[in-house]
Amino acid sequence: MTTIPQSSRKTTLIPPPTQDFAARQQTIRLYPSSNYVFATKDAQVERDVSVQARMQRLKSMYDESGMLRYVEGVFLCHEFGTPYVFLLQLPNNFFKLPGEYLDPDEEDEEGGLLRKLADRLSPENGEDQENSKSWKVLDCLAQWWRPNFEVFMYPFLPPHISRPKECKKTFLISLPEKIAFFVPSNMTFLAVPLFELYDNPARYGPQLCALPHYLSRYNFECV
Amino acid sequence: MTTIPQSSRKTTLIPPPTQDFAARQQTIRLYPSSNYVFATKDAQVERDVSVQARMQRLKSMYDESGMLRYVEGVFLCHEFGTPYVFLLQLPNNFFKLPGEYLDPDEEDEEGGLLRKLADRLSPENGEDQENSKSWKVLDCLAQWWRPNFEVFMYPFLPPHISRPKECKKTFLISLPEKIAFFVPSNMTFLAVPLFELYDNPARYGPQLCALPHYLSRYNFECV
Ligand SMILES: [Zn+2]
Ligand SMILES: [Zn+2]
Ligand SMILES: [Zn+2]
Ligand SMILES: [Zn+2]
Repeated sequence: MTTIPQSSRKTTLIPPPTQDFAARQQTIRLYPSSNYVFATKDAQVERDVSVQARMQRLKSMYDESGMLRYVEGVFLCHEFGTPYVFLLQLPNNFFKLPGEYLDPDEEDEEGGLLRKLADRLSPENGEDQENSKSWKVLDCLAQWWRPNFEVFMYPFLPPHISRPKECKKTFLISLPEKIAFFVPSNMTFLAVPLFELYDNPARYGPQLCALPHYLSRYNFECV
Repeated sequence: MTTIPQSSRKTTLIPPPTQDFAARQQTIRLYPSSNYVFATKDAQVERDVSVQARMQRLKSMYDESGMLRYVEGVFLCHEFGTPYVFLLQLPNNFFKLPGEYLDPDEEDEEGGLLRKLADRLSPENGEDQENSKSWKVLDCLAQWWRPNFEVFMYPFLPPHISRPKECKKTFLISLPEKIAFFVPSNMTFLAVPLFELYDNPARYGPQLCALPHYLSRYNFECV
Protein backbone atom coordinates (compact mmCIF):
# COMPACT_ATOMS: atom_id res chain seq x y z
CA MET A 1 0.00 0.00 0.00
CA THR A 2 1.24 3.46 -0.82
CA THR A 3 0.32 6.79 0.65
CA ILE A 4 0.83 8.70 -2.61
CA PRO A 5 -2.27 8.76 -4.81
CA GLN A 6 -1.83 7.47 -8.37
CA SER A 7 -2.28 10.90 -9.93
CA SER A 8 0.56 12.40 -7.90
CA ARG A 9 3.10 9.66 -8.46
CA LYS A 10 4.56 11.01 -11.71
CA THR A 11 8.11 12.06 -10.98
CA THR A 12 9.03 15.55 -12.04
CA LEU A 13 12.51 14.28 -12.97
CA ILE A 14 11.36 12.81 -16.28
CA PRO A 15 11.36 15.56 -18.88
CA PRO A 16 8.49 15.90 -21.34
CA PRO A 17 8.68 13.93 -24.60
CA THR A 18 10.45 15.78 -27.41
CA GLN A 19 9.10 16.53 -30.83
CA ASP A 20 9.63 13.76 -33.31
CA PHE A 21 13.13 13.88 -34.83
CA ALA A 22 13.12 11.39 -37.67
CA ALA A 23 13.06 13.25 -40.98
CA ARG A 24 15.09 11.58 -43.73
CA GLN A 25 16.06 8.71 -41.45
CA GLN A 26 15.60 5.39 -43.12
CA THR A 27 14.49 2.69 -40.67
CA ILE A 28 16.21 -0.68 -40.96
CA ARG A 29 14.76 -3.70 -39.21
CA LEU A 30 17.26 -5.88 -37.32
CA TYR A 31 16.71 -9.38 -35.92
CA PRO A 32 18.46 -10.98 -32.93
CA SER A 33 21.86 -12.57 -33.58
CA SER A 34 20.46 -15.88 -32.32
CA ASN A 35 18.22 -16.01 -35.42
CA TYR A 36 21.31 -16.65 -37.56
CA VAL A 37 23.09 -20.00 -37.53
CA PHE A 38 26.36 -21.14 -39.07
CA ALA A 39 27.31 -24.26 -41.00
CA THR A 40 30.76 -25.17 -42.23
CA LYS A 41 31.86 -25.78 -45.80
CA ASP A 42 35.22 -26.41 -47.52
CA ALA A 43 38.04 -24.00 -46.82
CA GLN A 44 38.55 -21.10 -49.25
CA VAL A 45 42.24 -20.29 -49.43
CA GLU A 46 43.29 -16.65 -49.59
CA ARG A 47 45.53 -16.33 -52.61
CA ASP A 48 48.30 -14.03 -51.45
CA VAL A 49 51.11 -15.06 -49.13
CA SER A 50 52.24 -11.47 -48.48
CA VAL A 51 51.24 -7.87 -48.97
CA GLN A 52 53.82 -7.62 -51.75
CA ALA A 53 52.32 -10.65 -53.51
CA ARG A 54 48.88 -9.08 -53.17
CA MET A 55 49.99 -5.75 -54.64
CA GLN A 56 51.69 -7.60 -57.51
CA ARG A 57 48.46 -9.48 -58.21
CA LEU A 58 46.44 -6.24 -58.16
CA LYS A 59 48.91 -4.68 -60.59
CA SER A 60 48.57 -7.61 -63.01
CA MET A 61 44.78 -7.37 -62.80
CA TYR A 62 44.93 -3.60 -63.37
CA ASP A 63 47.26 -3.87 -66.36
CA GLU A 64 44.91 -6.41 -67.87
CA SER A 65 41.51 -4.87 -67.14
CA GLY A 66 41.78 -1.33 -65.74
CA MET A 67 40.61 -0.04 -62.37
CA LEU A 68 39.77 -2.82 -59.93
CA ARG A 69 36.27 -2.84 -58.47
CA TYR A 70 35.93 -4.39 -55.02
CA VAL A 71 32.51 -4.86 -53.45
CA GLU A 72 31.66 -5.89 -49.91
CA GLY A 73 28.51 -6.33 -47.87
CA VAL A 74 27.37 -5.22 -44.41
CA PHE A 75 24.98 -7.68 -42.74
CA LEU A 76 23.51 -6.48 -39.45
CA CYS A 77 21.73 -8.07 -36.51
CA HIS A 78 21.20 -6.99 -32.90
CA GLU A 79 21.74 -8.16 -29.34
CA PHE A 80 19.47 -6.55 -26.74
CA GLY A 81 18.84 -3.62 -29.08
CA THR A 82 22.50 -2.93 -29.92
CA PRO A 83 23.43 -3.26 -33.62
CA TYR A 84 26.08 -5.84 -34.53
CA VAL A 85 27.97 -6.22 -37.84
CA PHE A 86 28.92 -9.63 -39.25
CA LEU A 87 32.65 -9.92 -39.96
CA LEU A 88 34.78 -12.70 -41.38
CA GLN A 89 37.82 -13.58 -39.31
CA LEU A 90 40.54 -14.97 -41.58
CA PRO A 91 43.20 -17.60 -40.77
CA ASN A 92 45.70 -14.79 -40.07
CA ASN A 93 43.19 -13.37 -37.52
CA PHE A 94 42.41 -10.37 -39.69
CA PHE A 95 38.82 -9.21 -39.76
CA LYS A 96 37.05 -8.18 -42.95
CA LEU A 97 33.61 -7.69 -44.35
CA PRO A 98 32.59 -10.43 -46.78
CA GLY A 99 33.50 -9.17 -50.24
CA GLU A 100 35.45 -9.80 -53.43
CA TYR A 101 36.68 -8.21 -56.64
CA LEU A 102 34.08 -8.00 -59.35
CA ASP A 103 34.96 -9.84 -62.53
CA PRO A 104 36.21 -7.23 -65.06
CA ASP A 105 33.32 -7.90 -67.43
CA GLU A 106 30.64 -7.79 -64.71
CA GLU A 107 28.10 -5.16 -65.73
CA ASP A 108 25.63 -5.69 -62.88
CA GLU A 109 27.51 -4.39 -59.87
CA GLU A 110 24.84 -5.27 -57.30
CA GLY A 111 24.06 -8.65 -58.83
CA GLY A 112 27.82 -9.29 -58.93
CA LEU A 113 28.12 -8.40 -55.25
CA LEU A 114 25.31 -10.80 -54.31
CA ARG A 115 26.94 -13.58 -56.35
CA LYS A 116 30.30 -13.03 -54.65
CA LEU A 117 28.66 -13.03 -51.21
CA ALA A 118 26.83 -16.25 -52.08
CA ASP A 119 30.15 -17.82 -53.24
CA ARG A 120 31.47 -17.12 -49.75
CA LEU A 121 28.45 -17.70 -47.49
CA SER A 122 26.02 -20.03 -49.26
CA PRO A 123 26.23 -23.84 -49.59
CA GLU A 124 28.67 -25.09 -52.25
CA ASN A 125 26.44 -27.53 -54.03
CA GLY A 126 23.83 -25.07 -55.20
CA GLU A 127 21.01 -26.42 -53.04
CA ASP A 128 19.45 -24.10 -50.50
CA GLN A 129 20.36 -21.03 -52.57
CA GLU A 130 17.09 -19.48 -51.42
CA ASN A 131 19.18 -18.23 -48.51
CA SER A 132 21.13 -15.72 -50.55
CA LYS A 133 18.16 -14.99 -52.82
CA SER A 134 16.58 -13.27 -49.82
CA TRP A 135 19.43 -10.76 -49.45
CA LYS A 136 18.73 -7.27 -50.79
CA VAL A 137 21.16 -4.45 -51.53
CA LEU A 138 19.77 -1.43 -49.66
CA ASP A 139 22.34 1.34 -50.00
CA CYS A 140 25.92 2.18 -50.86
CA LEU A 141 27.49 3.16 -47.52
CA ALA A 142 30.95 4.21 -48.66
CA GLN A 143 33.61 4.24 -51.34
CA TRP A 144 37.33 3.93 -50.74
CA TRP A 145 40.02 4.61 -53.30
CA ARG A 146 43.47 3.06 -53.75
CA PRO A 147 45.59 5.68 -55.54
CA ASN A 148 48.66 3.44 -55.92
CA PHE A 149 49.54 -0.22 -55.51
CA GLU A 150 49.94 0.30 -51.78
CA VAL A 151 48.00 -0.70 -48.69
CA PHE A 152 46.56 2.75 -48.01
CA MET A 153 43.10 3.58 -49.24
CA TYR A 154 41.19 6.85 -48.80
CA PRO A 155 37.46 7.64 -48.51
CA PHE A 156 37.91 10.23 -51.28
CA LEU A 157 39.97 10.49 -54.42
CA PRO A 158 43.15 12.32 -53.34
CA PRO A 159 44.06 15.46 -55.37
CA HIS A 160 45.99 14.89 -58.59
CA ILE A 161 45.04 11.20 -58.77
CA SER A 162 43.33 10.79 -62.11
CA ARG A 163 43.84 7.04 -62.47
CA PRO A 164 43.01 5.31 -59.17
CA LYS A 165 44.02 1.67 -59.15
CA GLU A 166 41.02 0.45 -57.20
CA CYS A 167 37.63 1.56 -55.97
CA LYS A 168 36.07 -0.37 -53.10
CA LYS A 169 32.39 -0.02 -52.31
CA THR A 170 30.61 -1.02 -49.14
CA PHE A 171 26.92 -1.89 -49.40
CA LEU A 172 24.29 -2.35 -46.73
CA ILE A 173 22.45 -5.66 -47.28
CA SER A 174 19.15 -6.54 -45.66
CA LEU A 175 18.80 -9.99 -44.10
CA PRO A 176 15.64 -12.03 -43.71
CA GLU A 177 14.39 -12.87 -40.23
CA LYS A 178 16.33 -16.17 -40.08
CA ILE A 179 19.07 -17.65 -42.20
CA ALA A 180 21.93 -20.16 -42.13
CA PHE A 181 25.34 -18.94 -43.29
CA PHE A 182 27.73 -21.53 -44.79
CA VAL A 183 31.20 -20.45 -43.75
CA PRO A 184 34.51 -21.76 -45.18
CA SER A 185 36.10 -23.99 -42.54
CA ASN A 186 39.24 -21.85 -42.32
CA MET A 187 37.25 -18.72 -41.44
CA THR A 188 34.91 -17.57 -38.67
CA PHE A 189 31.84 -15.45 -39.31
CA LEU A 190 30.94 -13.50 -36.19
CA ALA A 191 28.84 -10.54 -35.13
CA VAL A 192 30.70 -7.62 -33.58
CA PRO A 193 28.90 -4.69 -31.90
CA LEU A 194 29.31 -1.21 -33.36
CA PHE A 195 30.67 0.10 -30.07
CA GLU A 196 33.49 -2.50 -30.29
CA LEU A 197 34.51 -1.33 -33.78
CA TYR A 198 34.28 2.33 -32.88
CA ASP A 199 37.58 4.08 -32.37
CA ASN A 200 39.47 0.77 -32.45
CA PRO A 201 41.69 0.97 -35.57
CA ALA A 202 44.51 -0.98 -33.94
CA ARG A 203 42.35 -4.09 -33.95
CA TYR A 204 40.01 -3.53 -36.90
CA GLY A 205 41.80 -1.11 -39.23
CA PRO A 206 40.58 2.28 -40.49
CA GLN A 207 37.87 0.91 -42.77
CA LEU A 208 35.95 -1.29 -40.31
CA CYS A 209 36.25 1.43 -37.66
CA ALA A 210 34.38 3.77 -39.96
CA LEU A 211 31.27 1.54 -40.05
CA PRO A 212 29.62 3.25 -37.05
CA HIS A 213 29.96 6.55 -38.92
CA TYR A 214 28.27 5.25 -42.08
CA LEU A 215 25.49 3.56 -40.15
CA SER A 216 24.68 6.46 -37.84
CA ARG A 217 22.31 7.92 -40.44
CA TYR A 218 19.85 5.04 -40.06
CA ASN A 219 17.33 4.35 -37.37
CA PHE A 220 17.30 0.69 -36.38
CA GLU A 221 14.18 -1.14 -35.37
CA CYS A 222 15.35 -4.10 -33.27
CA VAL A 223 12.59 -6.71 -33.18
CA MET B 1 57.82 15.90 -86.68
CA THR B 2 57.58 12.39 -85.35
CA THR B 3 58.57 9.08 -86.86
CA ILE B 4 55.75 7.16 -85.17
CA PRO B 5 52.53 7.15 -87.19
CA GLN B 6 49.42 8.43 -85.38
CA SER B 7 47.80 5.01 -85.26
CA SER B 8 50.74 3.45 -83.46
CA ARG B 9 51.17 6.12 -80.84
CA LYS B 10 48.73 4.73 -78.28
CA THR B 11 50.71 3.57 -75.27
CA THR B 12 50.05 0.05 -74.09
CA LEU B 13 50.59 1.24 -70.51
CA ILE B 14 47.05 2.62 -70.21
CA PRO B 15 44.69 -0.15 -69.16
CA PRO B 16 41.32 -0.57 -70.83
CA PRO B 17 38.37 1.36 -69.39
CA THR B 18 36.52 -0.51 -66.64
CA GLN B 19 32.85 -1.30 -66.52
CA ASP B 20 30.74 1.45 -65.08
CA PHE B 21 30.73 1.37 -61.26
CA ALA B 22 28.06 3.84 -60.20
CA ALA B 23 25.01 1.94 -58.90
CA ARG B 24 23.26 3.61 -55.96
CA GLN B 25 25.68 6.52 -56.02
CA GLN B 26 23.90 9.82 -55.83
CA THR B 27 25.68 12.54 -57.81
CA ILE B 28 26.04 15.94 -56.15
CA ARG B 29 27.03 18.97 -58.22
CA LEU B 30 29.72 21.19 -56.69
CA TYR B 31 30.73 24.69 -57.80
CA PRO B 32 34.15 26.36 -57.41
CA SER B 33 34.87 27.98 -54.03
CA SER B 34 35.41 31.28 -55.84
CA ASN B 35 31.68 31.36 -56.68
CA TYR B 36 30.93 32.02 -53.01
CA VAL B 37 31.60 35.40 -51.41
CA PHE B 38 31.47 36.57 -47.83
CA ALA B 39 30.03 39.68 -46.23
CA THR B 40 30.25 40.64 -42.56
CA LYS B 41 27.38 41.23 -40.16
CA ASP B 42 27.12 41.89 -36.40
CA ALA B 43 28.92 39.52 -34.05
CA GLN B 44 26.93 36.60 -32.60
CA VAL B 45 28.24 35.86 -29.14
CA GLU B 46 28.59 32.23 -28.06
CA ARG B 47 26.69 31.92 -24.82
CA ASP B 48 28.89 29.67 -22.69
CA VAL B 49 32.13 30.77 -21.07
CA SER B 50 33.22 27.20 -20.25
CA VAL B 51 32.41 23.57 -20.93
CA GLN B 52 30.88 23.35 -17.45
CA ALA B 53 28.61 26.32 -18.16
CA ARG B 54 27.60 24.70 -21.44
CA MET B 55 26.73 21.38 -19.82
CA GLN B 56 24.74 23.21 -17.13
CA ARG B 57 22.80 25.06 -19.84
CA LEU B 58 22.10 21.79 -21.68
CA LYS B 59 20.87 20.22 -18.43
CA SER B 60 18.47 23.11 -17.84
CA MET B 61 17.15 22.83 -21.39
CA TYR B 62 16.76 19.05 -21.00
CA ASP B 63 14.92 19.32 -17.67
CA GLU B 64 12.58 21.82 -19.28
CA SER B 65 11.92 20.23 -22.66
CA GLY B 66 13.37 16.72 -22.90
CA MET B 67 16.03 15.44 -25.31
CA LEU B 68 17.89 18.24 -27.06
CA ARG B 69 17.85 18.23 -30.85
CA TYR B 70 20.86 19.81 -32.55
CA VAL B 71 20.94 20.25 -36.33
CA GLU B 72 23.84 21.30 -38.53
CA GLY B 73 24.47 21.72 -42.23
CA VAL B 74 27.21 20.62 -44.62
CA PHE B 75 27.76 23.06 -47.50
CA LEU B 76 30.23 21.87 -50.14
CA CYS B 77 32.20 23.46 -52.95
CA HIS B 78 35.32 22.41 -54.85
CA GLU B 79 38.78 23.64 -55.76
CA PHE B 80 40.29 22.01 -58.85
CA GLY B 81 37.95 19.04 -58.49
CA THR B 82 38.63 18.40 -54.79
CA PRO B 83 35.59 18.71 -52.47
CA TYR B 84 35.76 21.32 -49.71
CA VAL B 85 33.47 21.70 -46.68
CA PHE B 86 32.48 25.10 -45.29
CA LEU B 87 33.31 25.45 -41.59
CA LEU B 88 32.81 28.24 -39.09
CA GLN B 89 35.90 29.20 -37.14
CA LEU B 90 34.87 30.60 -33.74
CA PRO B 91 36.64 33.28 -31.65
CA ASN B 92 38.30 30.50 -29.60
CA ASN B 93 39.67 29.08 -32.90
CA PHE B 94 37.41 26.02 -32.73
CA PHE B 95 35.93 24.81 -35.98
CA LYS B 96 32.32 23.73 -36.34
CA LEU B 97 29.69 23.20 -38.95
CA PRO B 98 27.01 25.88 -38.95
CA GLY B 99 24.22 24.61 -36.74
CA GLU B 100 22.04 25.22 -33.69
CA TYR B 101 19.60 23.61 -31.26
CA LEU B 102 16.08 23.33 -32.59
CA ASP B 103 13.48 25.14 -30.55
CA PRO B 104 11.69 22.53 -28.36
CA ASP B 105 8.37 23.11 -30.10
CA GLU B 106 9.81 22.99 -33.64
CA GLU B 107 7.92 20.32 -35.51
CA ASP B 108 9.54 20.86 -38.92
CA GLU B 109 13.08 19.61 -38.39
CA GLU B 110 14.36 20.49 -41.86
CA GLY B 111 12.59 23.82 -41.99
CA GLY B 112 13.98 24.53 -38.52
CA LEU B 113 17.50 23.70 -39.70
CA LEU B 114 17.21 26.05 -42.68
CA ARG B 115 15.93 28.84 -40.40
CA LYS B 116 18.84 28.34 -37.97
CA LEU B 117 21.35 28.36 -40.84
CA ALA B 118 19.78 31.54 -42.21
CA ASP B 119 20.01 33.14 -38.72
CA ARG B 120 23.74 32.51 -38.88
CA LEU B 121 24.62 33.06 -42.53
CA SER B 122 22.00 35.34 -44.10
CA PRO B 123 21.72 39.14 -43.83
CA GLU B 124 20.24 40.41 -40.56
CA ASN B 125 17.69 42.79 -41.95
CA GLY B 126 15.62 40.28 -43.82
CA GLU B 127 16.43 41.63 -47.27
CA ASP B 128 18.18 39.30 -49.69
CA GLN B 129 16.69 36.22 -47.99
CA GLU B 130 16.48 34.63 -51.44
CA ASN B 131 19.98 33.43 -50.68
CA SER B 132 18.92 30.93 -48.04
CA LYS B 133 15.68 30.13 -49.87
CA SER B 134 17.84 28.42 -52.49
CA TRP B 135 19.35 25.97 -49.97
CA LYS B 136 17.88 22.47 -50.07
CA VAL B 137 18.23 19.68 -47.51
CA LEU B 138 19.44 16.65 -49.49
CA ASP B 139 20.19 13.91 -46.96
CA CYS B 140 20.83 13.14 -43.34
CA LEU B 141 24.52 12.22 -43.19
CA ALA B 142 24.88 11.20 -39.56
CA GLN B 143 23.44 11.19 -36.07
CA TRP B 144 25.47 11.57 -32.88
CA TRP B 145 24.19 10.89 -29.37
CA ARG B 146 25.12 12.49 -26.06
CA PRO B 147 24.37 9.89 -23.37
CA ASN B 148 25.19 12.17 -20.41
CA PHE B 149 25.85 15.83 -19.83
CA GLU B 150 29.46 15.36 -20.92
CA VAL B 151 31.52 16.37 -23.92
CA PHE B 152 31.61 12.89 -25.49
CA MET B 153 29.13 12.00 -28.17
CA TYR B 154 28.83 8.71 -30.06
CA PRO B 155 27.62 7.87 -33.59
CA PHE B 156 25.31 5.26 -32.06
CA LEU B 157 23.24 4.99 -28.92
CA PRO B 158 25.52 3.21 -26.41
CA PRO B 159 24.08 0.09 -24.74
CA HIS B 160 21.87 0.64 -21.69
CA ILE B 161 21.26 4.31 -22.54
CA SER B 162 17.51 4.66 -22.78
CA ARG B 163 17.32 8.41 -22.21
CA PRO B 164 19.98 10.16 -24.30
CA LYS B 165 20.36 13.82 -23.42
CA GLU B 166 20.94 15.02 -26.95
CA CYS B 167 20.75 13.89 -30.56
CA LYS B 168 22.74 15.81 -33.14
CA LYS B 169 22.00 15.42 -36.83
CA THR B 170 24.21 16.42 -39.74
CA PHE B 171 22.51 17.23 -43.03
CA LEU B 172 23.92 17.68 -46.51
CA ILE B 173 22.63 20.96 -48.02
CA SER B 174 22.80 21.80 -51.69
CA LEU B 175 24.05 25.25 -52.66
CA PRO B 176 23.12 27.24 -55.73
CA GLU B 177 25.79 28.11 -58.28
CA LYS B 178 26.65 31.43 -56.60
CA ILE B 179 25.77 32.95 -53.25
CA ALA B 180 26.90 35.49 -50.67
CA PHE B 181 27.22 34.30 -47.06
CA PHE B 182 26.74 36.91 -44.32
CA VAL B 183 29.10 35.90 -41.52
CA PRO B 184 29.07 37.25 -37.93
CA SER B 185 32.08 39.53 -37.52
CA ASN B 186 33.57 37.44 -34.71
CA MET B 187 33.65 34.30 -36.87
CA THR B 188 35.27 33.14 -40.09
CA PHE B 189 33.50 30.97 -42.64
CA LEU B 190 36.05 29.05 -44.67
CA ALA B 191 36.23 26.06 -46.99
CA VAL B 192 38.44 23.17 -45.86
CA PRO B 193 39.32 20.24 -48.15
CA LEU B 194 38.19 16.75 -47.17
CA PHE B 195 41.77 15.50 -47.19
CA GLU B 196 42.65 18.12 -44.56
CA LEU B 197 39.86 16.94 -42.23
CA TYR B 198 40.67 13.29 -42.77
CA ASP B 199 42.47 11.62 -39.90
CA ASN B 200 43.09 14.95 -38.18
CA PRO B 201 41.09 14.76 -34.91
CA ALA B 202 43.67 16.75 -32.97
CA ARG B 203 42.75 19.84 -35.00
CA TYR B 204 39.12 19.22 -35.97
CA GLY B 205 37.73 16.79 -33.37
CA PRO B 206 36.15 13.37 -33.96
CA GLN B 207 32.96 14.67 -35.56
CA LEU B 208 34.43 16.87 -38.30
CA CYS B 209 37.02 14.18 -39.07
CA ALA B 210 34.20 11.79 -39.85
CA LEU B 211 32.87 13.97 -42.69
CA PRO B 212 35.00 12.26 -45.37
CA HIS B 213 33.47 8.95 -44.30
CA TYR B 214 29.88 10.18 -44.61
CA LEU B 215 30.53 11.86 -47.94
CA SER B 216 32.37 8.96 -49.56
CA ARG B 217 29.06 7.44 -50.68
CA TYR B 218 28.40 10.28 -53.13
CA ASN B 219 29.87 10.97 -56.51
CA PHE B 220 30.71 14.63 -56.96
CA GLU B 221 30.36 16.42 -60.24
CA CYS B 222 32.71 19.43 -60.05
CA VAL B 223 31.65 21.99 -62.64
ZN1 LIG C 1 32.73 -16.01 -59.34
ZN1 LIG D 1 46.63 20.69 -55.91
ZN1 LIG E 1 15.54 31.18 -33.77
ZN1 LIG F 1 24.73 -5.16 -22.09
